[in-house]
Amino acid sequence: MRSERLADIEEGTKILEKYKIDLEPIGSRTEITGEQTLLHAAQQAGVHLAAVCGGAGVCGKCRVRIITGQVSPPNVAERRFLTQQEIEEGYRLACMVTPLSDVKLHVPPGSLTTTQRLQVEGQETKVTLQPSVIGLDLEMEVPSLEDLRSDQVRVQDASRAAGHPHLSTGLPVLSCLSDRVRNLDWKFRLVLRDDEVVAVLPEAESFCGLAVDIGTTKIAAYLVNLETGETIAKTGAMNPQVAYGEDVVSRIAYVNEGPDQKRVMQQVLVDTLNEVVASLCEESGLRQEQIVDAVMVGNTAIHHLFLGLPVMQLGMSPFIPAVSQAVQVPAAELGLQIAPGANIYLPPNIAGYVGADHVSVQLVTRLLDEKRTVIACDIGTNTEISIIHQGQVWSCSCASGPAFEGAHISAGMRAAPGAIERVKILDDGLHINTIEDQPPVGICGSGILDAISEMLSAGMLKSSGALDRDHPMVRKEARKGDVLLAAADTTGHKLEIVVTRSDINEIQLAKGAIRAGIDVLMETAGVGNEEVDAFILAGAFGTYIDVDSGINIGMFPPLARHKFSQVGNAAGIGAKQMLVSTGMRAMAEAIARKVDYIELTTYPRFTHKFAKAMFFPETTGIGDK
Amino acid sequence: MRSERLADIEEGTKILEKYKIDLEPIGSRTEITGEQTLLHAAQQAGVHLAAVCGGAGVCGKCRVRIITGQVSPPNVAERRFLTQQEIEEGYRLACMVTPLSDVKLHVPPGSLTTTQRLQVEGQETKVTLQPSVIGLDLEMEVPSLEDLRSDQVRVQDASRAAGHPHLSTGLPVLSCLSDRVRNLDWKFRLVLRDDEVVAVLPEAESFCGLAVDIGTTKIAAYLVNLETGETIAKTGAMNPQVAYGEDVVSRIAYVNEGPDQKRVMQQVLVDTLNEVVASLCEESGLRQEQIVDAVMVGNTAIHHLFLGLPVMQLGMSPFIPAVSQAVQVPAAELGLQIAPGANIYLPPNIAGYVGADHVSVQLVTRLLDEKRTVIACDIGTNTEISIIHQGQVWSCSCASGPAFEGAHISAGMRAAPGAIERVKILDDGLHINTIEDQPPVGICGSGILDAISEMLSAGMLKSSGALDRDHPMVRKEARKGDVLLAAADTTGHKLEIVVTRSDINEIQLAKGAIRAGIDVLMETAGVGNEEVDAFILAGAFGTYIDVDSGINIGMFPPLARHKFSQVGNAAGIGAKQMLVSTGMRAMAEAIARKVDYIELTTYPRFTHKFAKAMFFPETTGIGDK
Repeated sequence: MRSERLADIEEGTKILEKYKIDLEPIGSRTEITGEQTLLHAAQQAGVHLAAVCGGAGVCGKCRVRIITGQVSPPNVAERRFLTQQEIEEGYRLACMVTPLSDVKLHVPPGSLTTTQRLQVEGQETKVTLQPSVIGLDLEMEVPSLEDLRSDQVRVQDASRAAGHPHLSTGLPVLSCLSDRVRNLDWKFRLVLRDDEVVAVLPEAESFCGLAVDIGTTKIAAYLVNLETGETIAKTGAMNPQVAYGEDVVSRIAYVNEGPDQKRVMQQVLVDTLNEVVASLCEESGLRQEQIVDAVMVGNTAIHHLFLGLPVMQLGMSPFIPAVSQAVQVPAAELGLQIAPGANIYLPPNIAGYVGADHVSVQLVTRLLDEKRTVIACDIGTNTEISIIHQGQVWSCSCASGPAFEGAHISAGMRAAPGAIERVKILDDGLHINTIEDQPPVGICGSGILDAISEMLSAGMLKSSGALDRDHPMVRKEARKGDVLLAAADTTGHKLEIVVTRSDINEIQLAKGAIRAGIDVLMETAGVGNEEVDAFILAGAFGTYIDVDSGINIGMFPPLARHKFSQVGNAAGIGAKQMLVSTGMRAMAEAIARKVDYIELTTYPRFTHKFAKAMFFPETTGIGDK
Repeated sequence: MRSERLADIEEGTKILEKYKIDLEPIGSRTEITGEQTLLHAAQQAGVHLAAVCGGAGVCGKCRVRIITGQVSPPNVAERRFLTQQEIEEGYRLACMVTPLSDVKLHVPPGSLTTTQRLQVEGQETKVTLQPSVIGLDLEMEVPSLEDLRSDQVRVQDASRAAGHPHLSTGLPVLSCLSDRVRNLDWKFRLVLRDDEVVAVLPEAESFCGLAVDIGTTKIAAYLVNLETGETIAKTGAMNPQVAYGEDVVSRIAYVNEGPDQKRVMQQVLVDTLNEVVASLCEESGLRQEQIVDAVMVGNTAIHHLFLGLPVMQLGMSPFIPAVSQAVQVPAAELGLQIAPGANIYLPPNIAGYVGADHVSVQLVTRLLDEKRTVIACDIGTNTEISIIHQGQVWSCSCASGPAFEGAHISAGMRAAPGAIERVKILDDGLHINTIEDQPPVGICGSGILDAISEMLSAGMLKSSGALDRDHPMVRKEARKGDVLLAAADTTGHKLEIVVTRSDINEIQLAKGAIRAGIDVLMETAGVGNEEVDAFILAGAFGTYIDVDSGINIGMFPPLARHKFSQVGNAAGIGAKQMLVSTGMRAMAEAIARKVDYIELTTYPRFTHKFAKAMFFPETTGIGDK
């Protein structure tokens, strides 16, 4: 599908003997000739590969791994920095390698100079602290030939004396208890969850919890002090499953190939979460065993892939989740390296494509307490939408596709430095903003949304999505025309960032799906535009977009601008709230039970609604600014 | 320690340029010259290595692995049957390899023509069936776009309708539930333990449980139908941990080297148990997921090593167990390949050296219901003894050492074909019986016990254990004399099986420890010989020995012969009883709570009692036959 679209773009330019270079997991793409190196490709694509020596092959920093494709054989410089095994595994120095075919390569995080923008922020709301664990300080007699009680019984006896007569201890804790209590000289703090031992800490030591929003593409993680509710540290990471499929549908297809694939898909994620935990610990100066609880949210597929649940039935109609209720899983069972007895709580899923992450959003927006009519929308490759009206909640899911993640857009890229994120067409011409004000290298979701909205307002676009080839800004070279947003010559390579007819079509598909979902929910609830009191936009993309552009292209209904609010990473915030409060977990479970799921594919005349929603509005009715 | 003793034996013979060959895990030992092959050594030691071609290097069947020592380099014949990696791992063909030093080698089970005698038999007593699991047959609606319930909820709803409203399902079952119910067309049997799903089977299919007695040396395993209580299949295996230490003390020392060693010690056992499960399934025609429950018994160290519990504190005074209470561990957590939701039940340990296996013996002998005065004794490398008198129970543990397993005895071997197991000195001279009537290759525990008892009766032995060098059967060549039991020339090699002064000393240490333990318990309970109503001998060795010999050498008190009973593998039988009855589990837990453990090392004048018990009785007071 990708290469077809590329061919389509090339049609007008007829550049020959160039190879396509895909850079994973960043999701960026470029083309170079057989004389140019992979380092060149990375620079051209705006991927900041470390190359301290400037590409002379003497620093060894620009390591990449060839996933597919033919490249030049390893040279002497590379053999100096790479072992034979690494070379066999596909590792190479990007500055020394030229392509012999189209190439897909993996850029390890350590080879990058800048990290991508990841969303860990969000609007916080206060919740009452009600963690699932407590601390219990104990001190006890040392064993002797006259007192031969087992360590298990000795600790039980002491905790009974301290008012906890029903202590239980699972194998992972028992596996370290004996050494731990001796190292701590029989004076220590037990962390208990319903009288089950979670961790053995030095006396009076603080403990914390881990909240993670596992997105299809990005992971946001927070460390929260469970005694104060304070967020101690936060970080972001890429979801490494991207390497096995950009969207959940391709990941499900990969996992369906066999049990090994299923294990790999689970393991890469667990490995990354362990790296995230290690980095949060380093940042906060805590040890991993001080992390005594965890909450993870993700969509249903990610939830299943993380837990190693079957996804075959989730990948085909009627898209049935294996598990929908909230689960608590021992962290040790999944290999997550936190306190030995810690559990991971995962809130319920509503349906195959409305997952625990959306429940988390609903929780944060207090959908259950809401007396008004509210729409909540979390835009992603898959967009979940909920509406509450007169105390009743309906949810649905739309296949909006990865266009807003920069995929399937000719100059598309993720929201990384150098991505065009704002576009404005004024009387004096075109204006752009890039992330971190870097030289432009591509366009991200909010940028393409802006661009199309502005092109529409400027009269370049017809309602059907066709470009008006008579408009002076529309270039005639491409078969269906295109619009140049930026041109650069930063790396000795001429870079043109354009919007093509095909890009416009991708956005039409995406915004059409979202709008059709919104329309169906409003119809189901029986409300018109004037009855909607609030429209909540959650998630990374929903936070960064210009709402006016969304209204302008018809992705959102034409409500008054003030009714819209952008709440940030609500899924992550909800995870934090459930981490510090078991009451919030109960509320999440109550929400999931209350929601009526609307299956769009069986909704009457849905296809018609979707097709209609793909058109752009005839008038450019921008909301009040 | 081993090599010292060997040197001691050689002193009289002065054979030069011979290398000692240790064969693991059989525990047999021999010597060959540098011109002889390891196959020769195996034959000489009575280890039946497969060698269809007679040692010509053309069948490739006699694979062994060199653990320590220097040997001849691999030749062309070996390279034909072994990969480079196998050679690097130490694999060789025994018929092609000559020693360049003392060698310790591992004989894989597949390279043996006969298997060792393992104890899976025992006296059965009837218990009322009261298994921990039940079967529940369900049939349900197929999912559709109009009925999108998750698989978890769909199964819950059906089980609620069938009278089980509180169904719970752990991750290992959820991981296969979706595929399973679809393959079974939504018509299946749930196996439930307290409303938790253990397995998903075809409708009305039978299910069974696994009972295992994990001995320090041997494993006995039984498959029991949980609906009928019938034993379906049984098998034995060597405990593979033998390769890392013959006794639990050396295994604890090995594990204390680091976490990798601890993992290895656990993993080899789990691997072997999985092989045992596979072989039981093959024998019975059942699938592994039909095994829905398991009970395992072993001594405290084996219990800890199996569960991966810390043993550092168990290996040094005051020998504290990490865990003493009964535990239920998910089989999946340990990697045991039975039903995904199955638990493994392990009964309580009483002390560091009185483990769950002895509790199992106490259970089978119905010690709690006993109105008489009874002694129960399970002889092994470690011997556990209990006494019940007027409803009170005391237990202790004696370090009897591995002599009765054939270790540290010059011609010693385990109870395998060719081992001398019975010795009689009559007027016409010496008579022996070997296991399976094979040509004699060594002597096992019951044989050496008999030999010494007969030597004592024949007046060859003094009370101190010294040999009477004036006796015609005592040979004068060895420094302290020895007695020839058998000589053979079966494989072109002259084999002499002798009893040396050092062998006698080993047996004195063993029987002295056991007798001192019995004496202490009788003293504690305040009973004399005449008050003991019954003396129960459990375990493999206790089953095969001649009780008269044991009385004759003073290992057992001189009770009337009819008071002794040999009950076989009571630990294994107890495991089976706990498998089919949760009531028996409760009784085992009650027993463990009731027992008073006597620590011999702090018992007044124990050393004196032990030293005294090492002497042989002056008179040969054999009990009534």
